Amino acid sequence: MPKKTKKTTTDTATLTAKDKKTLGSIRGLADDVVQFAERGRAPYVDVPSRSLSNVRFNQSKRIIEMGTGKNRRELFNLAQARSYMQTLLVGTGCKQLIEQGKTTSIRGLFYLLKHTIEGTSEETFDAQDECDPVIEDMEVTLDAMREELHLYAKNAGAMVGPITLVDSGDQIDCSRMGSGGYSIPSIVEPEIVEFKKHTAKFVLHVEKDTVWRRFNEDKFWRKHNCILTHGGGQPPRGVRRMLHRLHYELKLPVYCLLDNDPWGYYIYSVIKQGSINLAYESRRMAIPEARFLGLRSDDYKRCQLSPSVQIRLNEQDTKRAGQIAQYAWFAHKKPWQKEIELMIENGFKLEVEALISKDISYVTEEYVPARLKEGNFLD
Amino acid sequence: MPKKTKKTTTDTATLTAKDKKTLGSIRGLADDVVQFAERGRAPYVDVPSRSLSNVRFNQSKRIIEMGTGKNRRELFNLAQARSYMQTLLVGTGCKQLIEQGKTTSIRGLFYLLKHTIEGTSEETFDAQDECDPVIEDMEVTLDAMREELHLYAKNAGAMVGPITLVDSGDQIDCSRMGSGGYSIPSIVEPEIVEFKKHTAKFVLHVEKDTVWRRFNEDKFWRKHNCILTHGGGQPPRGVRRMLHRLHYELKLPVYCLLDNDPWGYYIYSVIKQGSINLAYESRRMAIPEARFLGLRSDDYKRCQLSPSVQIRLNEQDTKRAGQIAQYAWFAHKKPWQKEIELMIENGFKLEVEALISKDISYVTEEYVPARLKEGNFLD
Repeated sequence: MPKKTKKTTTDTATLTAKDKKTLGSIRGLADDVVQFAERGRAPYVDVPSRSLSNVRFNQSKRIIEMGTGKNRRELFNLAQARSYMQTLLVGTGCKQLIEQGKTTSIRGLFYLLKHTIEGTSEETFDAQDECDPVIEDMEVTLDAMREELHLYAKNAGAMVGPITLVDSGDQIDCSRMGSGGYSIPSIVEPEIVEFKKHTAKFVLHVEKDTVWRRFNEDKFWRKHNCILTHGGGQPPRGVRRMLHRLHYELKLPVYCLLDNDPWGYYIYSVIKQGSINLAYESRRMAIPEARFLGLRSDDYKRCQLSPSVQIRLNEQDTKRAGQIAQYAWFAHKKPWQKEIELMIENGFKLEVEALISKDISYVTEEYVPARLKEGNFLD
Repeated sequence: MPKKTKKTTTDTATLTAKDKKTLGSIRGLADDVVQFAERGRAPYVDVPSRSLSNVRFNQSKRIIEMGTGKNRRELFNLAQARSYMQTLLVGTGCKQLIEQGKTTSIRGLFYLLKHTIEGTSEETFDAQDECDPVIEDMEVTLDAMREELHLYAKNAGAMVGPITLVDSGDQIDCSRMGSGGYSIPSIVEPEIVEFKKHTAKFVLHVEKDTVWRRFNEDKFWRKHNCILTHGGGQPPRGVRRMLHRLHYELKLPVYCLLDNDPWGYYIYSVIKQGSINLAYESRRMAIPEARFLGLRSDDYKRCQLSPSVQIRLNEQDTKRAGQIAQYAWFAHKKPWQKEIELMIENGFKLEVEALISKDISYVTEEYVPARLKEGNFLD
C-alpha cells in the first residue's frame, strides 16, 4: 500500500457507472488475494500475456485480438514477488484515483506509487519504464481501458467540423474553434465527451497537423460537410477512440489521408485493425471499415509530380514495407500488394505535403475531392 | 522564381496592414536587386548575423538582443551564389503566400520552393535543413516575424481561464473549452487572435501538459481567477508570444512553475530574456517581469519530500547548470546563484510531478497557493 492515501474532500466524488464497474474489478482482484491468504494458499495474479505469440488476427471481425494465454505472478516466488507487488500497487493507485474522482498521467501515477519499502532500501519502482508495463498489465487483467483506470496521455490531435459535443460539461461547437480546432483529449469516453448534434457526412483523417491546417484554412470541412481530424502522426488512443465513436455511434465513414510510405501504411493498419501492442484495445478502437484515400504509389505519375518531391527509400523503408505486406490483414489483398510493390519499384516515398509543389491548395481543391468523387480507395 | 505561381481565386485576398508592410519589405529587397542589375553592379543581400558573437544582453531592457553585424551574400561569388538564390527564393515564396492570403508550415514552404533549376541537375534545396536557416535569415533581414511571413509551426500548448478571445473570427470562451482547453495556435498576432474581455488577475504558466491538466481538473484557475497556460516543455513561439501579449496588453503578471533542473531554469530564462537563437524576436516575446514560482532547490526539505522522488543529476546536468549560472542575466543575481548552487549541492533534480508523492492535489491546493500568498518568487 502506498503511504499516501490522504483523504481529501473529493473522496466523495460521484462515481459513474463505469467507475463502479472498474472499482468492482479492482476489488475482485484484492478479494482473491485475501481469500488465498485466509485459505493459507500462496497468492497469485493471472495476467493475460501481451506477447506477440498471444496475438492473432480475427478474420471474421477483421481486427487484431489477444489470445487466451496468461502469465501467473506469484507472491512466494523470488523471480515474481517484485512484479506481483507492483501489480497490486498499480491497482491500489488506480483505486485511489477513481475514488477521488481524479485523473493523472502515467508519470503522476509513478510518483504516487514510488516509495522506499519500509525496513528496506528497496524502491517500489526504480524508474518510469518499470511502471509502464505494469499499467498495461493492469489494463488487460481488469479488462479496463487505461482511461477507465483514470490515467491519461498527452493531448494530441485536433478536430474541426459541423459537430457539437459536450466535454466535461462544456458545450463545444467544433465548427467555431478558431485556427487550432478542438484539441482531442486522451479520454473521450461517453462519460467525458458526449456527442450532441452533427450534420457531417464523413470523417477525413489526415496524418499531420500541418496538412490538417491546410484543410482547415481552406474550409474544406465546410464545403464537403465533414469532420476533419489529425493524430499528430501515429494517432494516440484518444484520437483512435474518437474516430471509433464517430464511426460506430454516428455511422460516419472514415477516410484516411496518409503519406505514401511504410509509416503511412502502418498508421492505416493501426486505425483499421489495431496494433499488436494494444491488441486488447482493438475492439474499442479498430475500424475495419476505414478506407485509405491516399497518397497512392501511382500518384506520382497520375498527378504529374515533379521529381524534386521524391524521397529515396532507404534500406529500413524497404524492409518495413516487406513486413507490412506480410501482415495477415494485407497479405491476401491484391490491391495492397500491388500498392506496396509499386512503391518499392518507384524507389521513393511521397509525403502528402509533396502535393504543395502543384499548388498550395491542390490537395484540398483537387486531389481529395477527385478521390472522393471517384470513390477510389484502398480497402 | 519557383515554377508554380499559379494564380488562384484567393490571390485577391484582403491584405491586412501588417501584410502590406511585409510585402513592402519583400518588394524593397527585390527592388534593390533590380537596381543593382540596372546599374551593372553585382547584386547582394545583407543578412543580419545570427551568430553568438552578434548577440548581447541589453542591461536596461533586460532582454537578449541582436547586434548590428551583417553577412553579405553576393550573386557573383561562387561560395555565396547558392545561398543568394535561396534567400530570394524564400522571399518569393512568402510573397506568394501573403498575396494568396494562405499560410503554410516550413515543410510546406520547402515543397513549394523545391525544384530542379532549369537546364541543370541542381535542386534549389536538397533538404529541409538547408531551407530552415534561410527562413530565419529572411525573418531578420525583413525584420518580420515568421508569422508575418505566413509560416507557422505545430500547435503546442494550451490555455484555460476567464478570458474570451476571437480566433479567426470564432469567439472562444477559454473558461468553457472542455478538458483540453484552448489549443494555442502558432500565430497569435492581433490580426488572428483578438482579446475581447477577461477578469483574470494573473497568468500561471506551467511547463508540461500533465501538470496543466492537474490544475485544470482541480479548477485552480476558477478559485484563483487566473489564466493557466502550458507550453509542452520549451514553449514554442506561439505560446511565448501569447504570454507576452497577456502580460503587456492585459497587464497580467506571469508566474512560471517549472521543474527544478537546468532545463526548467533554461525555459524560465527564455520566457524572461529571450533565447540566443531567436534573439531578434526577444522584443516581441521576452517578458523581463516574469517570475519563477518554483520548484526551488530547497523545496525538497521545505515540503518534506520523500527521497524516492530525487532524480540524480548527471554530468550533463551539472555542466548545463554551470553554463546557465554564467548567463549575463543570471550572473549578478545572488538568489539565482544560490538556487543553482543548492541544486548542485543536493545532487538531484526534482520534477513538478514529484509533489504528487505528497498528495495528488498538493501542488494545486497547497504548494502554489502558499507561494502566491508569500509572494515568494525568484526574479
